[in-house]
Amino acid sequence: MNKDFMLTSALSCELYREVRDLPIVDYHCHLDAMQILNDEPYENITQMWLYGDHYKWRLMRTAGVAEKYITGDAGDFEKFEKYIQALSYAIGSPLYHWSKMELSKYFGVEEEILPQNAELIYKKANEAIKTKCLSPKRIIAMSNVEAICTIEEIFCDLAAHKALAASRFETKVLPAIRGDKAINIEDENFGAYIQKLSEVTRIRITNLTDLLFALDKQLDAFLNAGCVSADYAFEGLNYEKASSAEVNKIFCDALCGRVHDKDKYITYVLTHMIRGSYKRGFAVQLHAGAKRNNNAAMYKLLGADTGYDSVSDRSYMDGLVKILNDCKNIGKTIIFNLNPADNAMVATTVGCFVDGECAGKVQMGAAWWFNDTFDGMTEMLKATCNLSYLKSFVGMLTDSRSIISYPRHDYFRRILCSFVADFVNRGEFTPNTDILKEIVSSVSYYNAKNYFNI
Amino acid sequence: MNKDFMLTSALSCELYREVRDLPIVDYHCHLDAMQILNDEPYENITQMWLYGDHYKWRLMRTAGVAEKYITGDAGDFEKFEKYIQALSYAIGSPLYHWSKMELSKYFGVEEEILPQNAELIYKKANEAIKTKCLSPKRIIAMSNVEAICTIEEIFCDLAAHKALAASRFETKVLPAIRGDKAINIEDENFGAYIQKLSEVTRIRITNLTDLLFALDKQLDAFLNAGCVSADYAFEGLNYEKASSAEVNKIFCDALCGRVHDKDKYITYVLTHMIRGSYKRGFAVQLHAGAKRNNNAAMYKLLGADTGYDSVSDRSYMDGLVKILNDCKNIGKTIIFNLNPADNAMVATTVGCFVDGECAGKVQMGAAWWFNDTFDGMTEMLKATCNLSYLKSFVGMLTDSRSIISYPRHDYFRRILCSFVADFVNRGEFTPNTDILKEIVSSVSYYNAKNYFNI
Amino acid sequence: MNKDFMLTSALSCELYREVRDLPIVDYHCHLDAMQILNDEPYENITQMWLYGDHYKWRLMRTAGVAEKYITGDAGDFEKFEKYIQALSYAIGSPLYHWSKMELSKYFGVEEEILPQNAELIYKKANEAIKTKCLSPKRIIAMSNVEAICTIEEIFCDLAAHKALAASRFETKVLPAIRGDKAINIEDENFGAYIQKLSEVTRIRITNLTDLLFALDKQLDAFLNAGCVSADYAFEGLNYEKASSAEVNKIFCDALCGRVHDKDKYITYVLTHMIRGSYKRGFAVQLHAGAKRNNNAAMYKLLGADTGYDSVSDRSYMDGLVKILNDCKNIGKTIIFNLNPADNAMVATTVGCFVDGECAGKVQMGAAWWFNDTFDGMTEMLKATCNLSYLKSFVGMLTDSRSIISYPRHDYFRRILCSFVADFVNRGEFTPNTDILKEIVSSVSYYNAKNYFNI
Repeated sequence: MNKDFMLTSALSCELYREVRDLPIVDYHCHLDAMQILNDEPYENITQMWLYGDHYKWRLMRTAGVAEKYITGDAGDFEKFEKYIQALSYAIGSPLYHWSKMELSKYFGVEEEILPQNAELIYKKANEAIKTKCLSPKRIIAMSNVEAICTIEEIFCDLAAHKALAASRFETKVLPAIRGDKAINIEDENFGAYIQKLSEVTRIRITNLTDLLFALDKQLDAFLNAGCVSADYAFEGLNYEKASSAEVNKIFCDALCGRVHDKDKYITYVLTHMIRGSYKRGFAVQLHAGAKRNNNAAMYKLLGADTGYDSVSDRSYMDGLVKILNDCKNIGKTIIFNLNPADNAMVATTVGCFVDGECAGKVQMGAAWWFNDTFDGMTEMLKATCNLSYLKSFVGMLTDSRSIISYPRHDYFRRILCSFVADFVNRGEFTPNTDILKEIVSSVSYYNAKNYFNI
Repeated sequence: MNKDFMLTSALSCELYREVRDLPIVDYHCHLDAMQILNDEPYENITQMWLYGDHYKWRLMRTAGVAEKYITGDAGDFEKFEKYIQALSYAIGSPLYHWSKMELSKYFGVEEEILPQNAELIYKKANEAIKTKCLSPKRIIAMSNVEAICTIEEIFCDLAAHKALAASRFETKVLPAIRGDKAINIEDENFGAYIQKLSEVTRIRITNLTDLLFALDKQLDAFLNAGCVSADYAFEGLNYEKASSAEVNKIFCDALCGRVHDKDKYITYVLTHMIRGSYKRGFAVQLHAGAKRNNNAAMYKLLGADTGYDSVSDRSYMDGLVKILNDCKNIGKTIIFNLNPADNAMVATTVGCFVDGECAGKVQMGAAWWFNDTFDGMTEMLKATCNLSYLKSFVGMLTDSRSIISYPRHDYFRRILCSFVADFVNRGEFTPNTDILKEIVSSVSYYNAKNYFNI
Repeated sequence: MNKDFMLTSALSCELYREVRDLPIVDYHCHLDAMQILNDEPYENITQMWLYGDHYKWRLMRTAGVAEKYITGDAGDFEKFEKYIQALSYAIGSPLYHWSKMELSKYFGVEEEILPQNAELIYKKANEAIKTKCLSPKRIIAMSNVEAICTIEEIFCDLAAHKALAASRFETKVLPAIRGDKAINIEDENFGAYIQKLSEVTRIRITNLTDLLFALDKQLDAFLNAGCVSADYAFEGLNYEKASSAEVNKIFCDALCGRVHDKDKYITYVLTHMIRGSYKRGFAVQLHAGAKRNNNAAMYKLLGADTGYDSVSDRSYMDGLVKILNDCKNIGKTIIFNLNPADNAMVATTVGCFVDGECAGKVQMGAAWWFNDTFDGMTEMLKATCNLSYLKSFVGMLTDSRSIISYPRHDYFRRILCSFVADFVNRGEFTPNTDILKEIVSSVSYYNAKNYFNI
């Protein structure tokens, strides 16, 4: 994997040189703002790579590695070794590419990923951690990141973000509000979430009016803390309209543990929050089609976000279109689909809500999560070109819990440049380099910066 | 974009020479027969290109162009300029290719599509309109079109088609009956459509028997006017069987504004019309999976067919298979799917209804509407090769409201020839050129001519 | 089609040499064990190729061949000639490749597939049948098959398998139990199937307890006959939980011809059988998404498995995940999806049920039936690489009723080697040949051997 990795022609290399050093606007990730604020140095690569990254856990399990070496009590080197062993055979996996790029960029490790190299890589990486004093802020600085939007639940107190804003740290770390905890009425912890919302807002929440008031208060609090984006996720959506009175009863019953008519509740509260997000100028990110916590036994053991999620085939677009129409003043919106079979549906639906307010006002989201691969990105780019407009695309995000995942932006930029150059090389688009460079630099950086008002 | 555009090998060029000059049978389009009959010359390229083409409107909106320059009161050059500006960056969009091919073929304009060339292109194109006296008939003659099937609603009086048939115009302009207006019982204008049907047939329609009688009368009228094909579109289909008495009640209630049990109505009337189409020897074209008028506000403002439609994920195949089985004597049928995720389903389902009556009696339709792209066509051709039989495919249609959209047939033929040649170049099919030429010429022209009895 | 057929680089040729001569473990097919036991020599190639192969019938019907030459009373040469005529134009069809490979391997026929060669090919092939004394056992021996798992209904008496096991025949011929006949309560022959189950188990089946007891008895009988795998197929799945008492009533009513609440019955009995399969150490193969017998008229005439099936879009994954969770101790499981639009869903769902018990414990099945093509295999391999782990994949099966379908394993191995080599040639994976050879040989042979304990 050399400097021309994923670059397939002289033109793609030329375009890549144009975007390689542009800053990163990471407008959707799962980093912990408090961890950035505290900025504690790391001890070893296992801690950085394997402690929280369920992408890697899943790969190891599929390779037949026992849970002991994944989330269990094996030692840090043992875990690392098992990962390298599994990864050595992971042809075509994005983890192979990401891991190589991360080893090179942050640790200066250029060794081949092979079972026999596990120990050497571990040693070299850990030396680099010490030599370079790798810590969250150090890594972010090494990564040329202009802004980070961290996804935060509705009951976040935003203290870390305020402290970071007041500090001298050059990268903007902004909260992005995620509404799911107020929406997923069936969640066994729904009551507890509402209680937390109550505490952070100091509003006693006993009915729907209280809830909406508290949510609005938090939307304002996020706005004041620099938030530029809201985020709502759903597996599927069944639109069911109901009166406030009806939804109030559903909510009060849910607080007492009697869940019913969830679709009416979801429709009502999701519409309220999206509308409230538009009003505050937030770009609304919608993540559709993740089926979560599929393995009941492992969910009991390890909880959520541990590698047991999957791509869903439930429908959501009928409901979503109705909700958007109900919002009336539709603002900036990005629809991310997890199921690539929905690419054409999403890429054509967004085109029904664009207008002259800004380029790509409503648009298809980057290839996300499971689709964050060469094939996934390529299919998303094709859908955007064929059915929408590449030039307006706000580009890549990490969506990661790992602080060293920024090379995914580099990975994307390489794939983008080759994708664009290929059209020209096949005689299907103008060879005018001004146009070409404007396209790749817009998608790599400037669109996101403008779209999110960074 | 030179003469070898989209041709990837010497063999593809050789095959293309075989089909390049074959006539066009455009068996499904939305041209206005009266406009062809009147044959008024055009004034400028904006009129020809931008007045009615919602494909282009959608591209402009996605690029952030204000509605004023799209359907609003901006001047014709301003609109043209905005389109060229947006198009200049539209890498991978079929509109980029179509626009270049149309500029070259009809206007002799070979300039690059670049913002700075907008004025020059506008001037040259408008000169060509005058010099060449471009009018509907002139353009059709320039395009080597043997036959055009225009989609007409059930209440069409067919006057323009009869006049054209009686005229000396060499291209056949045949009506194709579209049944949707009798089927979409939920449409707010359903009553008005039935009233129009009543007027054109001079049958007072007060119950189901009247309706079926009027529809049959119009099927006969279309047959007498040279119709060879019927067309039915639906987003999804829920098959629900009901008695005539029940459906009669549903219909009468709907005429009084009380819509209920639409699936029973649709199942009954759609089955009746498809069966009636088979009886008259019409090839039945079924268009599945378009979700229309998604933007409520813009629908109120601009009406239908203005660029606010999308790809649906609703199911239709279970219902459709039941309806086909109810028809018993299944005739020629083409199933067009708008969602490319349905390609495998459609390409395998059609294979359940083929028989010795003719080659490809029931077949998958060409990549249609949003899929009318290199990728869309290629995926459709792959599905046909892998799961069906390319040799029997009736090939391309324009499906267009634009009279200068015939280069899409050329676009398709180029892609087809490269697609076929690639198999041979990879050693996966016989290099026998008799076989290869028979395949590409059948798909480009002869199959459609035979299938539709042109 | 030469020795490098489907091999795209020097590296792919090198990898192919590593796997070319590995034995075949055909872990899912529809061969008739009694036919193998009897080992009667064939008379002509029509008998071998066209008597039972509905893949070929469908191709012929799509090409417009009359039923007389397919399942009708035309002579054997006439049928063969019609097939060769249709096949001559079948560019991109897997049948073209399979037919060429089979003609070469078993009959030594290297002639081009062209209409004018039909008679010559027929003559040469029939001579080869006589000269080489082609019979089932002879063909299996020529094909280097280590083990065959034939799919057998629940009421199979296993006599042929026992006789083959007791014989000197070197290839293992093992039964794989298929549970569908106990599950499809709506099947018009459900009562008859239960009657057959009753006879073979000598258990009078009048209620649910009897049924489960009889099914368990047959699972044991299969285990004793060497069975290593169970097989369940469904088009869609609606999970509905019910008590034993309720399901008992549904079952008793069904035996009396009153079918109701099928989803409750299916959920209960399918869960029981999968759990029972896991207990006995069977690898469970699940085949999802085939819509069968679509053509009502032809089903009446020819019955099932005659070429009238298709790809379904019905949902099954929600239900399946619930059933797997209900099983608690989930064992080895392979999920085969017929609709390629489900690739991402399946490839991510299997990753939710893997663990350290063995590599690829729950995995996505090979591209199956309609997907058994270059494109279908490639898409499946991509999904596995991107979303799962290629190294653990158990590889190819024939799923065939034809005894000379083994070249499909060769076809797969060639495609696999090119697929793997391409990553290396693009600089996206290690060029270390030890790793590469271990991947391709694992997927071609060793994984299946280990996974199924052959």
